[in-house]
Amino acid sequence: MNIAGKSYRTVWLDGDGAVKIINQLALPHEFEILELRNLAAAVRAIRDMQVRGAGLIGAAAAWGMYLAALEAGEGSFIRDLEAAAAALKATRPTAANLAWAVDRMLAALAAPVGTVSAETALAERRELARREAQAVSDEDAECCRRIGLYGLKLIAEAAERKRGKPVQVLTHCNAGALAFVDYGSALSPVYAAAEQGLKVHVWVDETRPRNQGAALTAWELGQQGIDHDLIADNAGGHLMQHGMVDLVITGADRVTGRGDAANKIGTYLKALAARENGVPFYTAFPSSTFDFSMGDGLAEIPIEERDPDEVRRISGKTASGLIETVQICPDGSPARNWGFDVTPARYITGLITERGICGASEEGILSLYPEHR
Amino acid sequence: MNIAGKSYRTVWLDGDGAVKIINQLALPHEFEILELRNLAAAVRAIRDMQVRGAGLIGAAAAWGMYLAALEAGEGSFIRDLEAAAAALKATRPTAANLAWAVDRMLAALAAPVGTVSAETALAERRELARREAQAVSDEDAECCRRIGLYGLKLIAEAAERKRGKPVQVLTHCNAGALAFVDYGSALSPVYAAAEQGLKVHVWVDETRPRNQGAALTAWELGQQGIDHDLIADNAGGHLMQHGMVDLVITGADRVTGRGDAANKIGTYLKALAARENGVPFYTAFPSSTFDFSMGDGLAEIPIEERDPDEVRRISGKTASGLIETVQICPDGSPARNWGFDVTPARYITGLITERGICGASEEGILSLYPEHR
Repeated sequence: MNIAGKSYRTVWLDGDGAVKIINQLALPHEFEILELRNLAAAVRAIRDMQVRGAGLIGAAAAWGMYLAALEAGEGSFIRDLEAAAAALKATRPTAANLAWAVDRMLAALAAPVGTVSAETALAERRELARREAQAVSDEDAECCRRIGLYGLKLIAEAAERKRGKPVQVLTHCNAGALAFVDYGSALSPVYAAAEQGLKVHVWVDETRPRNQGAALTAWELGQQGIDHDLIADNAGGHLMQHGMVDLVITGADRVTGRGDAANKIGTYLKALAARENGVPFYTAFPSSTFDFSMGDGLAEIPIEERDPDEVRRISGKTASGLIETVQICPDGSPARNWGFDVTPARYITGLITERGICGASEEGILSLYPEHR
Repeated sequence: MNIAGKSYRTVWLDGDGAVKIINQLALPHEFEILELRNLAAAVRAIRDMQVRGAGLIGAAAAWGMYLAALEAGEGSFIRDLEAAAAALKATRPTAANLAWAVDRMLAALAAPVGTVSAETALAERRELARREAQAVSDEDAECCRRIGLYGLKLIAEAAERKRGKPVQVLTHCNAGALAFVDYGSALSPVYAAAEQGLKVHVWVDETRPRNQGAALTAWELGQQGIDHDLIADNAGGHLMQHGMVDLVITGADRVTGRGDAANKIGTYLKALAARENGVPFYTAFPSSTFDFSMGDGLAEIPIEERDPDEVRRISGKTASGLIETVQICPDGSPARNWGFDVTPARYITGLITERGICGASEEGILSLYPEHR
């Protein structure tokens, strides 16, 4: 991802041996890099959403396991790592990538190492943790790059129909480079299209209550020089009724084996409007977002209920440049705050993963993932 | 409407002869009464949304015409009033009640008065303007009271099915007492139900970008002691998927002769979710909201596009109690801001007006409004 002309990932092991992240809570008003010094810092970063987004949560958790490996004792290594895994998994219940990455780290680290000395074994295990976390990061970025290439075809087809007019893509929340290690899922096709010189314009849902669209997607698209407009979450239906959206692409936090997709709250409403108005609706995500243990997403995917203060209060920048939080409702107003909703597969035109595009159905998914037959 | 235990209307001619309004821009953080001293103040109050909501815009415009009558010259009375009508109509293009109220005032004032002296004629016309504006206000309040009684039946029926559990009503924007002279349209059935001792709980959409739900509906429901929760606009689909909404009731700003309804942007998305999940979706409004000159609402109803800064910035109260505006997106972020959307009649279970409940179709509407046959 390009930030002020320099290339960045959202989480990385720096040359000085420190794990670093872009603090997404400071965006869009400030670009701040934080160091995660230990497991506790990684847990906090995920729970408090300094890092957020399906892929990035997974990669950050993998680096959290690496940090836990640096802290773990010789005699209690596996026990310590299992405790770290539990702590990391408890931070966010909806994202499939989180548990996937943590379990992958745990499996890699539980494998026997062929050394006699306990001290050498510990050093080897730590090096193994570093390599595995790096692999999780690299694979996430590579998956997203490939999602971009597959999704690009959809934009290119729309561009032909539009004969020179920009292809209008609507997205909800942030499923861009900031939500992964790099490139993003829903926005990766947009970046690939722009690179090919195709004209694209993105409608950015502000994505209440945490405003990831307004704060992150608008910022990220601005940094990459992509034409876009911020809109209220309420506007998408009107746009689709009036033919002002050619394609909806969103990310996903968990997708079941039947193609039901959990994503940021409000995604389902856009899927309904898309189907109703004949607009293709695609869900883009790396394979690590699949949860093949689940079928019926509505019944089975746990939906995180978050602090109602996220609905009651909004932070932003005042005219004098200070970051301030304002309350938008009466004092003591009761509120509820669900983080995600589930879009049933029947509303989804197709799934875009690093393996290609398939129908949102058991059959469609198995055509790309025959190993789950 | 009850405010801190005292009964209020949203616009009224005070004992001292001044036209007064509740300043809705100050809510929910401050309860402030303003005096409209002249036509210009009435135009500003409507345009800048110190008063807003279908019925209240009409009543405030009627009082604006009264103020114009006080200012109008002897020789140029009708000309002055026509200019006032044009200025008032130009403030907000979508609401049907505005033009309806202004035209009604104009028609009443254009009627010949049977007096010889020009001075007496002017005094008579001014008195006529006062009486007509008062009638517009009183009729608006009475229509809303009756809407409440008809809508109450729907809540009572739901209450029987719920066997003691609260009836869950979802509403979008503010179509309560604050949007009319009193009682409200969508919320009037809720108030009537509460008065009958029925258990009701209201899901309050915050209604971005201007947050009328968070600022006005939550405040108004709190003042009337109605159980409610503020939610993000994005949450309604999830609630309906999980059986947590028994009834959606919204207001309307303009309804065509076929039953297509323009209302606050985002209403359409809730109508889609309601139909998809078998939740009844009702539109409540006084007859003055009808625009029988129109059929196809999507093609014909003008949709106001407002200042994009309404999307980029939010006002609220800081922890130290100051009212502050914060920017929620990057500096210079482009944004678009449509004020309304149109819900086609086929998604609307029924229309609730002061004449009763009818189907959202030409046939349904004509059954209650045979004079438009």
